[in-house]
Amino acid sequence: MGAEYEPTERTRVRRKPGRGSYDRELVHSVLDEALICHVGFVHDGQPYVTPTIHVREGETVYLHGARANRTLGALGDGTPCCLTATLVDELVLARAALHHSLNYRSVMVLGTAREVTESDEKERALRAVVEHIAPGRPDEIRGPDETDLKSTKVLSLPIEEASAKVRSGPPVDEKADLELPYWAGQLPLTRGIGDPIPAPDLTQDLPVPQHVMGWNRS
Amino acid sequence: MGAEYEPTERTRVRRKPGRGSYDRELVHSVLDEALICHVGFVHDGQPYVTPTIHVREGETVYLHGARANRTLGALGDGTPCCLTATLVDELVLARAALHHSLNYRSVMVLGTAREVTESDEKERALRAVVEHIAPGRPDEIRGPDETDLKSTKVLSLPIEEASAKVRSGPPVDEKADLELPYWAGQLPLTRGIGDPIPAPDLTQDLPVPQHVMGWNRS
Repeated sequence: MGAEYEPTERTRVRRKPGRGSYDRELVHSVLDEALICHVGFVHDGQPYVTPTIHVREGETVYLHGARANRTLGALGDGTPCCLTATLVDELVLARAALHHSLNYRSVMVLGTAREVTESDEKERALRAVVEHIAPGRPDEIRGPDETDLKSTKVLSLPIEEASAKVRSGPPVDEKADLELPYWAGQLPLTRGIGDPIPAPDLTQDLPVPQHVMGWNRS
Repeated sequence: MGAEYEPTERTRVRRKPGRGSYDRELVHSVLDEALICHVGFVHDGQPYVTPTIHVREGETVYLHGARANRTLGALGDGTPCCLTATLVDELVLARAALHHSLNYRSVMVLGTAREVTESDEKERALRAVVEHIAPGRPDEIRGPDETDLKSTKVLSLPIEEASAKVRSGPPVDEKADLELPYWAGQLPLTRGIGDPIPAPDLTQDLPVPQHVMGWNRS
């Protein structure tokens, strides 16, 4: 397996190709860091874009939801989809309005999802979802039982046709604007956590686990 | 104009309708807080979902980009689109794997975009984009000149067919799981800023402006 995905007519980055990448590790790292993705599909000619939790395992992205979920229903029927995950890293503040931007990392995966019916893979995927949200947590919860598995649908989307797009670095202003008396630069955005809020129906006085106190995404 | 958007067959929230809303103020507030949105459109039967900076002005969302931008090209031709903006607020950590979730606020706008050709509206929209990224900044930059305006395309999408979906509050576990010795609750996610990085080509020793130092999104 090569270090890069093969660009296709559909994934080749045309505008600012310098920002495009087909690097497997980069694609994986964006999918792993992003808590959610946005999935697009078409119904009656109308595109719909839905936010959803995903998780990557190897060269597969898993989605899941209640069996009655409409998006999963549409996707599981083999309709073409586009899964996009985006991380916004910095504001890019230029001297000219035109050159304002964001530094970001984004991944797009095109393909067709299929329902996971094999129970081992399904359980593994659902465990991975919890690990994706809160690393370390799958060992400190109740895993899915038969009823849970029945009511949950898991879809898998192979990462075959994929590309990343990244902007990084300082603003790029026109030469003529460099002398203007306006501050320009990057403003990094950080993600942190607030104080954990214990569930009101906790029946025991349990300490907040380390995987919660130490939660960190970057 | 009512306080709510009229739900349509396409925007009515079916799964967990209690999470659905058509409230104008809520829709506006999510669009305003989200730095970016994801826009979906269809090309040759394939959906594409692209992250992009948006801004709302009244009942219109504006998108912009280089004239050669493929997404804008497709959208400006009157193809149906779906614009979705999502804010992830908290991790929802339940006792059972099945009940893990995220607290979020998401808005979906369906419709058709058109190119803004009227120059006043276009300039207003581009100024609003900078204000969207960094409130207060439009007065401390060089606005678009004739060349900038020519090379930039602005699209407007009316907010007519729109819905919001929100999850908030604690995890909801099964009664039978409440006695399990697992911590459960919400973990708030916060967004902050790091140290501003001055552009390497700054020609003057300018202080970091207040709209940068005090940048805050929530």
